Amino acid sequence: MYYTPPPRDPKAPPVRVNLLSDTQTRPTPAMREAIARAEVGDEQIGDDPTVHELTARVAALLGKEAAVLMPSGTMCNVTATLVHCRPGDEILAHETAHIISREGGAHAALGGFQVTQLKGPDGQFTPETFRAALHPRSRYQPPQTVVSVEQTANIGGGTIWKKAALDEIVAIAKAQGMATHMDGARLLNATVATGIPAADMAAGWDSAWIDFSKGLGAPIGGVLAGSAAFIDEVWRWKQRLGGAMRQAGVVAAACIYALDHHVDRLADDHANARALARGLSQIQGVEVQEPETNLVFFKPDGAGVSGEKMVSGLRKRGVLLAMMDGRIRACTHLDVTSAMIEETIGHVREIVRGA
Amino acid sequence: MYYTPPPRDPKAPPVRVNLLSDTQTRPTPAMREAIARAEVGDEQIGDDPTVHELTARVAALLGKEAAVLMPSGTMCNVTATLVHCRPGDEILAHETAHIISREGGAHAALGGFQVTQLKGPDGQFTPETFRAALHPRSRYQPPQTVVSVEQTANIGGGTIWKKAALDEIVAIAKAQGMATHMDGARLLNATVATGIPAADMAAGWDSAWIDFSKGLGAPIGGVLAGSAAFIDEVWRWKQRLGGAMRQAGVVAAACIYALDHHVDRLADDHANARALARGLSQIQGVEVQEPETNLVFFKPDGAGVSGEKMVSGLRKRGVLLAMMDGRIRACTHLDVTSAMIEETIGHVREIVRGA
Amino acid sequence: MYYTPPPRDPKAPPVRVNLLSDTQTRPTPAMREAIARAEVGDEQIGDDPTVHELTARVAALLGKEAAVLMPSGTMCNVTATLVHCRPGDEILAHETAHIISREGGAHAALGGFQVTQLKGPDGQFTPETFRAALHPRSRYQPPQTVVSVEQTANIGGGTIWKKAALDEIVAIAKAQGMATHMDGARLLNATVATGIPAADMAAGWDSAWIDFSKGLGAPIGGVLAGSAAFIDEVWRWKQRLGGAMRQAGVVAAACIYALDHHVDRLADDHANARALARGLSQIQGVEVQEPETNLVFFKPDGAGVSGEKMVSGLRKRGVLLAMMDGRIRACTHLDVTSAMIEETIGHVREIVRGA
Amino acid sequence: MYYTPPPRDPKAPPVRVNLLSDTQTRPTPAMREAIARAEVGDEQIGDDPTVHELTARVAALLGKEAAVLMPSGTMCNVTATLVHCRPGDEILAHETAHIISREGGAHAALGGFQVTQLKGPDGQFTPETFRAALHPRSRYQPPQTVVSVEQTANIGGGTIWKKAALDEIVAIAKAQGMATHMDGARLLNATVATGIPAADMAAGWDSAWIDFSKGLGAPIGGVLAGSAAFIDEVWRWKQRLGGAMRQAGVVAAACIYALDHHVDRLADDHANARALARGLSQIQGVEVQEPETNLVFFKPDGAGVSGEKMVSGLRKRGVLLAMMDGRIRACTHLDVTSAMIEETIGHVREIVRGA
Repeated sequence: MYYTPPPRDPKAPPVRVNLLSDTQTRPTPAMREAIARAEVGDEQIGDDPTVHELTARVAALLGKEAAVLMPSGTMCNVTATLVHCRPGDEILAHETAHIISREGGAHAALGGFQVTQLKGPDGQFTPETFRAALHPRSRYQPPQTVVSVEQTANIGGGTIWKKAALDEIVAIAKAQGMATHMDGARLLNATVATGIPAADMAAGWDSAWIDFSKGLGAPIGGVLAGSAAFIDEVWRWKQRLGGAMRQAGVVAAACIYALDHHVDRLADDHANARALARGLSQIQGVEVQEPETNLVFFKPDGAGVSGEKMVSGLRKRGVLLAMMDGRIRACTHLDVTSAMIEETIGHVREIVRGA
Repeated sequence: MYYTPPPRDPKAPPVRVNLLSDTQTRPTPAMREAIARAEVGDEQIGDDPTVHELTARVAALLGKEAAVLMPSGTMCNVTATLVHCRPGDEILAHETAHIISREGGAHAALGGFQVTQLKGPDGQFTPETFRAALHPRSRYQPPQTVVSVEQTANIGGGTIWKKAALDEIVAIAKAQGMATHMDGARLLNATVATGIPAADMAAGWDSAWIDFSKGLGAPIGGVLAGSAAFIDEVWRWKQRLGGAMRQAGVVAAACIYALDHHVDRLADDHANARALARGLSQIQGVEVQEPETNLVFFKPDGAGVSGEKMVSGLRKRGVLLAMMDGRIRACTHLDVTSAMIEETIGHVREIVRGA
Repeated sequence: MYYTPPPRDPKAPPVRVNLLSDTQTRPTPAMREAIARAEVGDEQIGDDPTVHELTARVAALLGKEAAVLMPSGTMCNVTATLVHCRPGDEILAHETAHIISREGGAHAALGGFQVTQLKGPDGQFTPETFRAALHPRSRYQPPQTVVSVEQTANIGGGTIWKKAALDEIVAIAKAQGMATHMDGARLLNATVATGIPAADMAAGWDSAWIDFSKGLGAPIGGVLAGSAAFIDEVWRWKQRLGGAMRQAGVVAAACIYALDHHVDRLADDHANARALARGLSQIQGVEVQEPETNLVFFKPDGAGVSGEKMVSGLRKRGVLLAMMDGRIRACTHLDVTSAMIEETIGHVREIVRGA
Repeated sequence: MYYTPPPRDPKAPPVRVNLLSDTQTRPTPAMREAIARAEVGDEQIGDDPTVHELTARVAALLGKEAAVLMPSGTMCNVTATLVHCRPGDEILAHETAHIISREGGAHAALGGFQVTQLKGPDGQFTPETFRAALHPRSRYQPPQTVVSVEQTANIGGGTIWKKAALDEIVAIAKAQGMATHMDGARLLNATVATGIPAADMAAGWDSAWIDFSKGLGAPIGGVLAGSAAFIDEVWRWKQRLGGAMRQAGVVAAACIYALDHHVDRLADDHANARALARGLSQIQGVEVQEPETNLVFFKPDGAGVSGEKMVSGLRKRGVLLAMMDGRIRACTHLDVTSAMIEETIGHVREIVRGA
C-alpha cells in the first residue's frame, strides 16, 4: 500500500497550509491571464500554435527531436511503454515507482506488460541491481524491453538519481538492446537542485517527460519527448487513449508560462523543504529523511503518536498532508510560504508534546 | 477510408471560412473570461469544485446518476466499453461510427473487443438489422455485450436517430442482457433540432456522453454519464489511461459556460446548414444530402470536377473543408456566419462553372 | 451466426453416416499402431524425435524453413497473428473465415487485433476487393498488417483459391509491407484436387499451416510453418498459450502416418462429395452448390421443408450433419464410404417427398 | 533467472539416468496399449467418451463440479486466471511460482494481469505475508482478484503447503472477495506424501488442476477443475487459445491409466528422493535440502566445484539434471530406479573428490 488519502472531514477547518502535493498548486493570476489570451487551434490535427511552441521548447529542453502534449503524466508513461514494448514484454522499475504504485496496473492492463519491481534504498536501484535482474533470452520468461527510472524518486523521498548512475544504467540497457524511459515528473526539481541541465540528465534515455501540473504550477499537462519516429508512434496511442485534444493551447499557454517563470523558483521549494526538515528534526520524537528536493518524509519515532494521528491532528489545525508508504509526506510548492513552514513545525511540535 | 485531411499548403491563403469541423471552434472572449476566473482544485482526487458542478449538471441533463469529465470524447467511448466488456466480447455499431472509423482500433487494442460493423443508410442501422446480427451464445463466437449508437450520426450526414428506433434497440438489447452505449458527441444538436430533451433521448442507455469541444465551443472536454457504479468503474480506467487531471476546473468552466450560452444557439448552426444545402442544391452539378443538423454532405455529381479538386479549389479561396467517406463535408458551428455560408455557395458555384 | 450444432437427442438412433465434419474421423487401426509405437521425448524442450520428423516434413512440404506442432489449427492461426501483429493492428480476411467465425474473437481477445471482414462469393475475396480495403497510414485507423486466406474456404463451400489470385494478393500485400497468412486447414484438399504442390500454393505466404485432425484423419495436431525467425517467435507464444507439450510424439506419429497414407486418398473424399452433390441435385426441391473438394453445401429450395427440419429428419435416420451459415453442410472424409453417400441421397429424397 | 537448460553436447554419452524432470517420463507399454485402444470422439464438441470419463474422475478427485482436459498445465493456469480476472487485476503468488517463472509472462500478455511476487522460504508465502500484501480498494492500484498457490512448490524444493496454511489463505481471500487458484501440477505428490485426500487439499480453492505429464507418466495432459459455471467459461478461453482438440481420447486414455496405476507409486519416487538426499548429504562439500516429495535440490558448498561444473560433469557420466534458481535439481520419477539413485550418488562423490 503506497498511498493513504488524507482524512476528509466536512467539519474540518479550512486548509491553510496545503502540503499534500505539488499537484495542488493553483494557477497564479498571471498564469490565468496567459491562459485566457492563448492563441489556439485544433491540437488533434496538429494545428494549435501554442501547443507547437510548448512541445518544441520541451523537446529542446530535454535534448530530443520531438515532443507531444498529454493531459497527464500517467499518459506520458503509458504511451511510452505502449510504443517501446509488445505484449508479454517486461519493464524493470523500482518497486516504489509511479508506474507501479499509482497507475492502477495500466501497463499490464493496456499493454500486457509485466513490470518487475527492483529494490533499493531511497526509491532507487543501483546499476548492479539492474544488471542482476537481467536474464538470458528464454521462451519461459518475458523479453526484457524497457528500464524505467523516476527522476526525482517520489516515494524514495524526492531523491535525485545521480548522473553517473543514470549513465551506467543506460549503458547496461543499450548493451542488452533495451529501451530506456525516464519518468521525469519532477526532473526539473533535480536539474535546479544539481545545476545539471535537463538535456544532460535525459541524455541516453529514449523517452523522457516532464510534468507541468506539479511544482511548475500549471493546471494540466505533461510533455513527453523522444525521437521523431517515437513521438509519431506515441501519437497513435494518444489518439487511441483519448488524449488527443482540441484547443489545447489553453493548457499549453500555462505550461509555457511555467517554463518562463516557475522553473528557477523551484529552488525556493527546496529551501522550504530543508527548513521544514531542519525544524522537524529538532523535535524529539520525530524522524526525518534529509530532503534533496521538495519532498520531506518524516514519521513520529516515539510511541506517543502514530503517523495517522499526526496527519489527522495536523488536519484539524488546518495543515493538509498525507501518509505515503508508511511515512508522512510533506510537499513544498508554489503555494507554500516559509511562514507556513514555520507554522507547520510549530503544530507538529505541539502534537508530539501533547501525545 | 473514412477521412482525408484537408490539403495543407503553406502558400495557401489564410482560412476565412472554416467549415472543416465544429471541433475547430475557438473559445469566445466571454468563455475565456470564465476560464480565467475558474475556481479550481485537484480533479484527480475529487477536489475540483468547477468539475463537480459540471459533472452534476451533465448527469442531470442526461438523466443519469453520475458523470465524469474526460479530456476527449474518444476517452468517453473507450472507458465506457472498457467497463461494459471483457476481452473477447463483441460490440455492435454502425460501420461508419466514430468508434470504428476514428479511434485507431482502440477498442480492440486496449480492451480486446471485436467491433462488428452493422450496415444501413444515413449512418444508422435499423432495429431489425441489429436483431438479425445477434447470435445464440456459443463458444465459437464472442459474447455480444454492447450495442452502440452515435447521436447524431456524423458520417451518416449528421442524421438524428429517431426516439422510437432508439427505444426499440434498447428493448432488444435489454432482452439479450446487453449494455447500451450512446456516443452523444452531437446529442445536443439532436435535442435542439427535435425538441426532445437529452434525458429522454438517453433514457435506457447505460452510458451516454456529450462533447463540449464540438458545436458547444469549449476548447477541451467530454462528459460521460451513467449509473454511480458505472462511473466509479470508469474512473479506474480514466486513471489508467491518463485521463485524470489536476486543476481541470479551467477546462470545466468553459464547458459550464457552453451549457449556459451555447446550447440554444445550435439552432443557428442548423439554419446555416440548411441554407448551405439549399444554396448548393441550386447549383447544377452538385448533389447534396438534406441536412438534419449542422453537417452538410455534398459532392460534385457531374464529370467536370472531382471532390478532391473542389476541396482544394475552395481552400485556395480561403474556404476550409474536407473529404469524408467519399463526399465533401461542411460543418457549421459557432464561428460560421450566414455571410460565410453565402460566400461558400458562391465559391462552389464558380468552381463548378469553371470546371 | 455461422454454425448451428446438430440436434442432440439422447433418444436418437446411433449415427451410421457421419457427415458432420472431417474433424470426426477416427484413427484407423494402423494409425493407432503407429501411435502406440511412437518414439517420444520432451517436446517442450525440443527433445521429441517424432515431433522433429513431423515438423521437418511439413516445413519441406510447405516450402518453409521451419515448422512447429500445435494442439489445434486454432492455435496455428492465433500464434501466427500474435507474431505478425501488434495491438491495434488490422487483419483482413473473408467474413466467413475461421479466424472470424469460429475462434471466439481470439484475435481481438488475445492480441488486440481488429479483424476486417472482406466480402465476396464462395468464401473468397478478390484481389480488387482486398486492394479497395486498404487505406493510407493514419492515426485514426489501425495499421493494416496481415492479410489472411483460408485454403480451402470452408463456409464458402470448400472452394479452392486460385493460384493466380493468391499470387496477386501476395503481391499487393508485399507492396504494402503487410504479412501474409494462409490458414491451410484443408490446403492438402486443394493440392490433391488441383495437382498444384502445397509449396507452390503457399509460396509467398509468410505463414501457412495444415491440419492433421480433419481429412488426414489424425486425432490431434496442426503444424504451422514459416521462416526460422518466425517459428522462433511462434514458440514463445505457444509456450504462453499452453501449447507446449511433453511426449507429443504420440500425437506426431499419427500425423506422420497420415502424411504417408492419407493424403492421396483425399481424392476419394472429393469423388464422394461430387457423387453426393450429383445425387442431391437430381432431387426436386434441393439446391446444391457444386463441390470443389470434400464439402457439399445444399438447402431445400422449396417451401416444403426447412434446413433445420431436413437436418433433424436425417438425424432420426442415423445421418449426422449440420447447418452452417444458413445451409446444410455435408463433409466427406475417411470414415465415409460411397455406400453411405447413396444412403444419404435416398434419405434426403424421402424427406423432401414426405414434406 | 529461474532455469538453466542442461548443457547439450552432441558428443555427450547417452543419458542413462534422467533426473532432469518428471516431465521426461515416457509412457509404459501398458499405457501405450491403453492409448492405442482408446475409444474416441470429437472433444471440441463434447463428444469424446474417454475425455468425459477422465474429466468426471478428476472433478470427483478434486471435489469439484466439473473439469476440462487441457494440452498442458500452463493452459490450466492461463485459462483459470483469464476467467477469474479482468484486465488490470492483480494476482498474488510466490515469486518462484510457475505462473511467474515459467509461463513467459502469459498472464500479463494474454490477460493484462499484474502478478505480484510474494516472498517466503521454500517457495511458500505465509498467510501473514499474504494479508500484508493486501491493500484497500483504490483507483491507483489494481484490484486484487486472485491468490494462487503451487502445490507442491517446485522451485521451493517440492515442498508441501500445509493444509492449515492453505485453509487460512482461503479464509483471508474469501473475506476479501478474492478467487483462489491452486496450481496442483504435483498435488498428487502432496496427497501421497501426507495422506490428505486431494479433495481436502483443494477444498475452498475455486480452481485447481493436476498435471498428468509429470510424475503420473502420461505423455500429454492437465485437467482443470472447478464449479460448472467456471468450467463453462474456461471452455470459451480453451477454444480461443487453441486448446480444443479432436479425438483427445488418445490423450485422456493415458491419463486414466495413470490414475489407475501411477498414483500410489509416487511414494516410490519420494523414497528415491529421500535416498538420494541422504546419500548426497553424506558427501563432504555438498549441501542438500531435505526433500518432502520427489524433488531434491542440492549444491556444492565448497570452493572446489561450481553447480554448473557439477551438472556438466554428471552429464558426461550419463546423468542428466539441471540448474534451477542457482541450485541443482534432481527429480525422481517413473523412469528412475533406486539403482540409478545409487549410481548418481557415486558420481557426485567422485566429482567432488576430483575437484
